[in-house]
Amino acid sequence: MAEFKKTAIPVTREEDYPQWYLEVIKAGELAENSDVRGCMVIKPWGYTIWENIQRELDQMFKDTGHVNAYFPLFIPLEYLQQEADHVEGFAKECAVVTHHRLSVNSEGKLVPDGKLEEPLVVRPTSETIIGASYAKWVNSYRDLPILINQWANVVRWEMRTRLFLRTAEFLWQEGHTVHATQEEAMEETYKMLYVYKDFAENVLAIPVIEGEKSEAERFPGAVSTYSIEAMMQDKKALQSGTSHFLGQNFAKSSKIKFQSREGKEEFAWTTSWGVSTRLIGALIMAHSDDNGLVLPPRIAPVHIAILPIYKDEREKETVFSYIREIKTRIADLRLFERKIVIHIDDRDIRGGEKNWYWIKKGVPLKLEIGPKDVENETISMVKRTDPDLKKYFIPRDKFIFDLIETLTGIQNDLFEKADRFQKQNTITIDDYEEFKKVFTPRNEEKPEIHGCFARSHWCGKRECEDKIKEDLKVTVRNIPFSEKDEEGKCIYCGERSGKRVIFAKSY
Amino acid sequence: MAEFKKTAIPVTREEDYPQWYLEVIKAGELAENSDVRGCMVIKPWGYTIWENIQRELDQMFKDTGHVNAYFPLFIPLEYLQQEADHVEGFAKECAVVTHHRLSVNSEGKLVPDGKLEEPLVVRPTSETIIGASYAKWVNSYRDLPILINQWANVVRWEMRTRLFLRTAEFLWQEGHTVHATQEEAMEETYKMLYVYKDFAENVLAIPVIEGEKSEAERFPGAVSTYSIEAMMQDKKALQSGTSHFLGQNFAKSSKIKFQSREGKEEFAWTTSWGVSTRLIGALIMAHSDDNGLVLPPRIAPVHIAILPIYKDEREKETVFSYIREIKTRIADLRLFERKIVIHIDDRDIRGGEKNWYWIKKGVPLKLEIGPKDVENETISMVKRTDPDLKKYFIPRDKFIFDLIETLTGIQNDLFEKADRFQKQNTITIDDYEEFKKVFTPRNEEKPEIHGCFARSHWCGKRECEDKIKEDLKVTVRNIPFSEKDEEGKCIYCGERSGKRVIFAKSY
Repeated sequence: MAEFKKTAIPVTREEDYPQWYLEVIKAGELAENSDVRGCMVIKPWGYTIWENIQRELDQMFKDTGHVNAYFPLFIPLEYLQQEADHVEGFAKECAVVTHHRLSVNSEGKLVPDGKLEEPLVVRPTSETIIGASYAKWVNSYRDLPILINQWANVVRWEMRTRLFLRTAEFLWQEGHTVHATQEEAMEETYKMLYVYKDFAENVLAIPVIEGEKSEAERFPGAVSTYSIEAMMQDKKALQSGTSHFLGQNFAKSSKIKFQSREGKEEFAWTTSWGVSTRLIGALIMAHSDDNGLVLPPRIAPVHIAILPIYKDEREKETVFSYIREIKTRIADLRLFERKIVIHIDDRDIRGGEKNWYWIKKGVPLKLEIGPKDVENETISMVKRTDPDLKKYFIPRDKFIFDLIETLTGIQNDLFEKADRFQKQNTITIDDYEEFKKVFTPRNEEKPEIHGCFARSHWCGKRECEDKIKEDLKVTVRNIPFSEKDEEGKCIYCGERSGKRVIFAKSY
Repeated sequence: MAEFKKTAIPVTREEDYPQWYLEVIKAGELAENSDVRGCMVIKPWGYTIWENIQRELDQMFKDTGHVNAYFPLFIPLEYLQQEADHVEGFAKECAVVTHHRLSVNSEGKLVPDGKLEEPLVVRPTSETIIGASYAKWVNSYRDLPILINQWANVVRWEMRTRLFLRTAEFLWQEGHTVHATQEEAMEETYKMLYVYKDFAENVLAIPVIEGEKSEAERFPGAVSTYSIEAMMQDKKALQSGTSHFLGQNFAKSSKIKFQSREGKEEFAWTTSWGVSTRLIGALIMAHSDDNGLVLPPRIAPVHIAILPIYKDEREKETVFSYIREIKTRIADLRLFERKIVIHIDDRDIRGGEKNWYWIKKGVPLKLEIGPKDVENETISMVKRTDPDLKKYFIPRDKFIFDLIETLTGIQNDLFEKADRFQKQNTITIDDYEEFKKVFTPRNEEKPEIHGCFARSHWCGKRECEDKIKEDLKVTVRNIPFSEKDEEGKCIYCGERSGKRVIFAKSY
């Protein structure tokens, strides 16, 4: 950058993207590592974002006919054993409970005691444990479909963890449905993929590409896996939600059978689909800047931070009564059915610190209100999405009148900015040399932001995908539904390909 | 009972109360046991009740200044070890994770592998793990108070389990707060106890007695524990929420220290408080009858079940258009800020089965609507709380006009009925022989419903409480705030007592 500009985050995206990500989380007080390996603490600001994600998604699930339920945290080993691909996919990263009490040894140290006859696995995902219930619940075609979702914590013993993106314990939702026919199960699989796309784009303001995953990235045990893929500001892909068509694989291993309308006993067809606290990682990386978090209004814990300015008790009274009036007039407004959340920050700290506090928290609008504003019936407003963070003086009535439009405008601007970025960085590449060049940093010591979403042909063979991954750490993100059939040659081996796919580095 | 009366639940409360409880859960499809020892599956109807409990309580927590966050599922052994009373209270019932992957042994069986250097305990409660974070977050009096709540699953390896009342895994909320002074921490402890009382009485329609627990029933590590106690229909007490004043005990073990306004380093004062899915057990036992579940409207997943009646497509169209009109006119009504939830049951099953289905589910109002109703502009309505389940024909407009009052009336009736029952069965007893008689079933083989809440004097000695428990399985439920100071003699030893307490059998 030509001119020197101080930023609130100690390291910029250009300087060190991975570090910038962690600093944004720290500055925004979203989460932190705990002493328990790989487990994070989600702090109130981060958790409120999760609550907002939950509320919006939950409504979408209910609007599409789903209900919530809750199944056990622990899975008996024998359940896992029943589906070979599934157990292979998760066996290497399971937390295993082997004892059911503690006792004190001769050195006065607590040690596990009361060995279980059969160890239990802390759920890494719940297909098998939920399947065991479904097997009991489903007898006839009249019992179908079952459309259940669960909000839960799951544990996968990841060796390299990163706040929100990859943690040993994380929070998620997992939908598990059972259907009488293949067609109906496929329809559900697609429907939920599009619920995720709708949510990502319209609530999180993150454009995504929907499509099918390659075999290498398929959910262990699934017939086919579909994903939405989002581009982060470092041009890497972040898989932001998956929907799996499980065929009859899990129905067979869990013995989910039913009597059909024709009186025949058949195995059911199942699906599963999920998004997790990973979405918060996507949210951070899609919109934030070198001053910290930037939040789309639909998901922001607070829409408006108000900083009252006064010198004495008399001024304080005047200013607060003016603020109260604004609050009252805003009380009935709704942004997508949600009340407008206002936080009045009257802490006794330096003005600069307070200002930056709310910028780093990503709150869409920050108002300063002092005695002058009361006199002139104005407010001064800073939009978090304004790159210059310029202060505007606005008549109070206009501010209130325009408020929903202002917030909706911010929501739309964020989506459009991210969408432009994704489109600009989605490149059609037909030559492996060019492909290699795009995905290779110029400076290995300090890799700058590079890469793209490469629209390239792929023959569909695992071998080519593996080789490209080995060469460049680039994989097929998905085979987009939006790509038309087109004859071409595999970017790696040159053999026939019928469609372009999206290649990218990924989280 | 003099006259024979068929009931929907195969066993009545009088015949076998514990079995009746399980049958109500089964008939209402609330929950069931899983194959995992002590872990239940909360089915959609039960889980929706939990969601409604969560929504109402969460709002009350937020209205009293609390925010939510999330802390790790796993607790390092060393954390537990730091507070001696605490570890003693929970060591005997902990699920312990000792391995972090599975491998296949020579017989092809999955076995735990990758032994952890330090085992981890699945949280039975989170004082110690949350305390470790608070120790990092608190430096100055300016960082206080911390007012955080967590919605989570916890595990206590109970040997004898019972759906909702005592399960190895259960869902709950746990508030954990930190304060600069003892007074403020005490104030918080009381405040949350009264939030629970408010919630139990006004949302669940269950009258409760608030007071302090005796030492024997204190939370392990607390200075004092307060509870709300509810009377079930078998006259046993169910502890329905607890609030703990932890003094500086956990602050010392977790090293939560702060610089006071005067510049001195001090240990903070902490509290914790929680309610769990146990509340659903309380809800079932407080209101249900021999026809199954009875739900207070504020917590019911569905307020109105509508059963359309028609013979052919033409009638169906007429009836459905009439129902749609009713739905539209109800759409804007609110019962305590919640929209009225209507379920139209158009399943192709026998009318009798359908009728009883909604009675067993506890839905407050059940409507039948057929062509005659359309013609006469009426509806036929059954109130779940009507012991005779009598069908009333009501003009449609009157039904809609009165609806909120009808539902509020049901809510109030349920509270008043439970309150009368509790008051009628709260007996002042000053003689141990009478005390023994009340708490002893006349028929040991098939214990009938007996007992009461006994208002009796107690000297405060653990010894007397232990002896009474040994004799009669009766314990001090709590020392009610409502009891005035009064000179008397301990019901057991005859020594001086300054106050009456509540003795009862309990869950």
